[in-house]
Amino acid sequence: MEHANPDDTRIGWIGTGVMGASMCGHLLDAGYAVTVTTRTPAKAEALMARGADRVTTPGEVAERSDVVFVMVGFPSDVREVVFGDAGIVEHARPGTIVVDMTTSEPTLAVEIARVAEARGVHALDAPVSGGDVGARAGELSIMVGGDPAALDAVTPCLQHLGTTIVHHGGPGTGQHAKMVNQTLIAGTMVSMCEALLYAHRAGLDLDAVLRSVGAGAAGSRSLTNLAPRILAGDLEPGFYVDHFVKDMGIALDESRRMGLTLPGLALAERLYREAQAQGLGRKGTQALMLAVAALSDVEWPVGERQSES
Amino acid sequence: MEHANPDDTRIGWIGTGVMGASMCGHLLDAGYAVTVTTRTPAKAEALMARGADRVTTPGEVAERSDVVFVMVGFPSDVREVVFGDAGIVEHARPGTIVVDMTTSEPTLAVEIARVAEARGVHALDAPVSGGDVGARAGELSIMVGGDPAALDAVTPCLQHLGTTIVHHGGPGTGQHAKMVNQTLIAGTMVSMCEALLYAHRAGLDLDAVLRSVGAGAAGSRSLTNLAPRILAGDLEPGFYVDHFVKDMGIALDESRRMGLTLPGLALAERLYREAQAQGLGRKGTQALMLAVAALSDVEWPVGERQSES
Repeated sequence: MEHANPDDTRIGWIGTGVMGASMCGHLLDAGYAVTVTTRTPAKAEALMARGADRVTTPGEVAERSDVVFVMVGFPSDVREVVFGDAGIVEHARPGTIVVDMTTSEPTLAVEIARVAEARGVHALDAPVSGGDVGARAGELSIMVGGDPAALDAVTPCLQHLGTTIVHHGGPGTGQHAKMVNQTLIAGTMVSMCEALLYAHRAGLDLDAVLRSVGAGAAGSRSLTNLAPRILAGDLEPGFYVDHFVKDMGIALDESRRMGLTLPGLALAERLYREAQAQGLGRKGTQALMLAVAALSDVEWPVGERQSES
Repeated sequence: MEHANPDDTRIGWIGTGVMGASMCGHLLDAGYAVTVTTRTPAKAEALMARGADRVTTPGEVAERSDVVFVMVGFPSDVREVVFGDAGIVEHARPGTIVVDMTTSEPTLAVEIARVAEARGVHALDAPVSGGDVGARAGELSIMVGGDPAALDAVTPCLQHLGTTIVHHGGPGTGQHAKMVNQTLIAGTMVSMCEALLYAHRAGLDLDAVLRSVGAGAAGSRSLTNLAPRILAGDLEPGFYVDHFVKDMGIALDESRRMGLTLPGLALAERLYREAQAQGLGRKGTQALMLAVAALSDVEWPVGERQSES
C-alpha cells in the first residue's frame, strides 16, 4: 500500500457530478493517470479533454486502477458500483484501495469494508464537507473511516482534494462524522431562511443585515456561502436538495436506531421534503428559502431587491 | 453632536454584567471619563478601580454625561432605566445621546426615540453580537437603528467596542437586526447540541469530530466558541439562557405580529425553556446540551471523555 506519487499510482474515478468533477480534476492537475466512468458521458468530457481515460463500467475502472474513488449520489448507487456484476469488488485486484466519498449509510460502509477485505481489497469511507466551493478550491474537509494503513496510502491523493483530513476510526465512522456535519447544516439552513424572512418582513436591507450578523456570533459558513446566493435569486446547485434529503434521512434512521430524539433534524428534513414537493429537488440547498417563505404565504424571491443602506 | 475624542466626551454606563463590564472597560482604557451605575455594586468595583465614578441612579449618570450607554437585562429594565423617575429621560440635558445596547423590543426602541426626541435627547438602539469573547476583545458586531447624525457622534466610542458597525435605518431597526441574529443562533445551537449527541452515541471521538466538521460547510461561530465549552463540561455564562429565552420571545412576538411562521425558532425557544425548567437559566446558552440530551434520556455531561483519536 505504498502509493506516494503520481508516477506510481493509477487512479480510478467513478461519478463526475458537481463535486466529483472538481475533485477528479485536481488529481489530473497533480499529474495522476486517471480512468473515469460516469452514467452521463457528457459530464466526463471536460475531464477527458484534460487527459482522463473513460471506460464503460466501474469494474473496468477497477481493473486499471490502484486506487478507486467513488463519488455518486445515493447508497443504492454505491451498492451497484461496488457490488454489481460490473462493479469494483468483482474486478479489483488484491491490494486495490476503494475510497467511497459519497455521503452514504454507515452500515453500508461497514459491509463494503468486510466484503472487500475478504478479497484482499481495502475500503475506506471518506465523505467530504465544504460544498462546491470547497471542492473547486481543493479545500474540503474529509472524514475518514477504515484501515489507517489504507488511509496513509491514499493521503497523498486526498491532500489534493482537502485541507483537513481526519481519521475517525473503523469502517463507517467517516459516514457517522458526515451525519454529524449534515445535522449541523440542517438546523443552520432552517434558521438562516427563517432569519432572512424575518429581515425581509421587518423591512431591513438584506445586504446590510448579512454584513452585521455575519460578523457576530451568528456567523457561519452557510451564511457566508449560501445567503448571498439566496439574495441574488441564485438557486443553482452547489449541493442538491435531493441529496441533502437523502443525507438527513440516513441521519434520522441512524439516530432512531441509536434511540435518539432529534427534533431540529426532523424539522429540517420535513421542510426540505416540502421543498422537494415544490419541485425544488434539483436546485441547491439554498432553495429551502422558498419552502420556508411558503409557510408564511410569502412568495420568494421577493419582487424587488432593496438597495444597500 | 460632536463628541470625537475622550477629552470632550463624558460617558455614562448603566449595567455592568458580563458584557457591559467588558465593554465599559474598553472606554476607560481609551481614556474616557466614565460614570457608572449598577444594581449590584460589587459588579462595578473593578471598573471603579480603573477610574470609573459610581453614582446611585441612572438619572445621576445622565446628569453627568454627554453619551449614556445602557446594557441591562430585560426590556422592563430598559424601561425603568430610561423612563423611571430616577431615569435618563427625566434627567438628561438636551443634546445628550442615549445608546441602548440591550437586546430589547423594536417597539420599545421606537418609543424611546420618540419620547427622547421630544426633549431634545437623541436615542439609538444598538444591540451587539459576538458574546463575551467578542466583548472582551472589542470585536463585537453592533447593529444600529436611529438618527444617523447621533450615530456619527458616538461612532468614536463604538469603535472601541466593535469592529463592525452597521446602520440599519430608523429607530428599532437595530433591534430587528439583532432578532435576525438571534434567530440564526437559535437554530444553530439546537443543531449543534443534536449533532454532538449523535456523535457521542455513535461512539465518535468528539474532539476529532469538531476538527473535521468545523473545517467544512458546517463551520460556525457557535461551533468554534461554544462546542469546546460543552466538551469541557463548562456551562458558565457567556450569555445567559434566561436572556436568550427573552430574546427569542421578542423575536417570536415580532414574527407573529408580522404574520410569519418560524418553526425552527419556535422549537429552539421551547427547548431553551425546557433548559430553564431544568434550572439552567443562569448558565450559558451552551447548557442547551443538557436539555437536548434529556429528550433522549441521555445524561450529559457524559461520564467519561474519550481520548483523541
